[in-house]
Amino acid sequence: MNDTIDLMMRHRSIRQFTDEPVSEDHVQQAVAAGQMASTSAAIQSYCVIRVQDMERRKTLVGLTGDQTKVARCGAFFVICGDVRRHRLIGQRDGMPYDTQCEAFLLAVVDATLFAQNMVLAFESMGYGICYIGGLRNNLADVSALLSMPEGLYPLFGLCVGRPAQDPMIRPRLPQQSVLFDDAYPDDDAMLAEIEAYDATMLDYFRQRGAGDRTWSVETASKFQQPRRVDIGPYYRRQGANLD
Amino acid sequence: MNDTIDLMMRHRSIRQFTDEPVSEDHVQQAVAAGQMASTSAAIQSYCVIRVQDMERRKTLVGLTGDQTKVARCGAFFVICGDVRRHRLIGQRDGMPYDTQCEAFLLAVVDATLFAQNMVLAFESMGYGICYIGGLRNNLADVSALLSMPEGLYPLFGLCVGRPAQDPMIRPRLPQQSVLFDDAYPDDDAMLAEIEAYDATMLDYFRQRGAGDRTWSVETASKFQQPRRVDIGPYYRRQGANLD
Repeated sequence: MNDTIDLMMRHRSIRQFTDEPVSEDHVQQAVAAGQMASTSAAIQSYCVIRVQDMERRKTLVGLTGDQTKVARCGAFFVICGDVRRHRLIGQRDGMPYDTQCEAFLLAVVDATLFAQNMVLAFESMGYGICYIGGLRNNLADVSALLSMPEGLYPLFGLCVGRPAQDPMIRPRLPQQSVLFDDAYPDDDAMLAEIEAYDATMLDYFRQRGAGDRTWSVETASKFQQPRRVDIGPYYRRQGANLD
Repeated sequence: MNDTIDLMMRHRSIRQFTDEPVSEDHVQQAVAAGQMASTSAAIQSYCVIRVQDMERRKTLVGLTGDQTKVARCGAFFVICGDVRRHRLIGQRDGMPYDTQCEAFLLAVVDATLFAQNMVLAFESMGYGICYIGGLRNNLADVSALLSMPEGLYPLFGLCVGRPAQDPMIRPRLPQQSVLFDDAYPDDDAMLAEIEAYDATMLDYFRQRGAGDRTWSVETASKFQQPRRVDIGPYYRRQGANLD
């Protein structure tokens, strides 16, 4: 195993940070590494807004579901799909911009590839990170707070900082329930894998002192009720086509 | 700069490969590294189908826009968002599964984080890679070819193999047009950055012997016409809610 794979295998999200700030040089290195990720035909349909202003950081704590780490981490970033640049060029050069579902998907994928490189760069420099999906709790407010024009699609937040905790690594699904050859497996085979994983996760939760919980129940319960139902309408207002 | 950042900074897509296959051990290491990427609340809504069967690989060449590398690379993977597992658990346990735009977005982000770790793991072992967005040219056919049930969202392909070429690294947008503090910049500032980048890319294209081209024109022309207009309807048929 080489250093890069070893780094990835040791990943766990960090939710408590020391007071040490993230240096400007490290931010620049991480963003540069992010930019070197693949991007569909070089369109680079992403950007990142670093929230430096502490008042805005505090407001974001509330907007993301009272996640105090958003204010307490060394640096907080908002990762966005960005087709604004493409639209500006089109306007300037008299070329029409056709919104299309494909363009939205490209922006989400591009932005996520960028973010994961950034994350690994930070982790390789000894920082801990936590993605903040709670950013999507209140996208309209987030976007007003950070002056996001049409063509910007804020996707998730990212806390970065020096770790002040050392949590256990969380076991993943067995590899044979994620990697398949030539065809997706049948339902019974998949359910058997999930049962084995539930047993693993029961141990994990008990070791963490989190009681008797299984992955199945935890996961299924997340999808019983509609969540964040305004994200589709919000992205459409920002100019996305999801048809 | 450490080894991981150095690896990312040297990335360029590889489109020509030697005949050397990708070893089973390396595939397992890369998928394991992929699985250690962050996943929203551990839902792990992704899977990867490796296409081993050469007849299917040849069919995929046609389906992805005559990309011969899909058959010629050492290993070809299809990265999918996967909420099938979540739906199966719900069915088994009598818990309803509420399709929601949020669930689709989570699957796309989860799958992309997974894929980028996989990619970096392969690159760290000396392989070259190329993502294949052309997979979305014919999603219905791809999904029939690889027996993808409802709940699977094929997103992009991935060619992996030993590089048989050494292409130039493609310059990215200037960092100041990707990283912002507290607010998105105004249009004039952005257009000035794009003009500087166009000059850089003109040099790059000339050095590659690709003639006089700019990023602006290349990029704007991609979004003039609707592309892959059936992906929205396809993902809906697979059970996604994009409303």
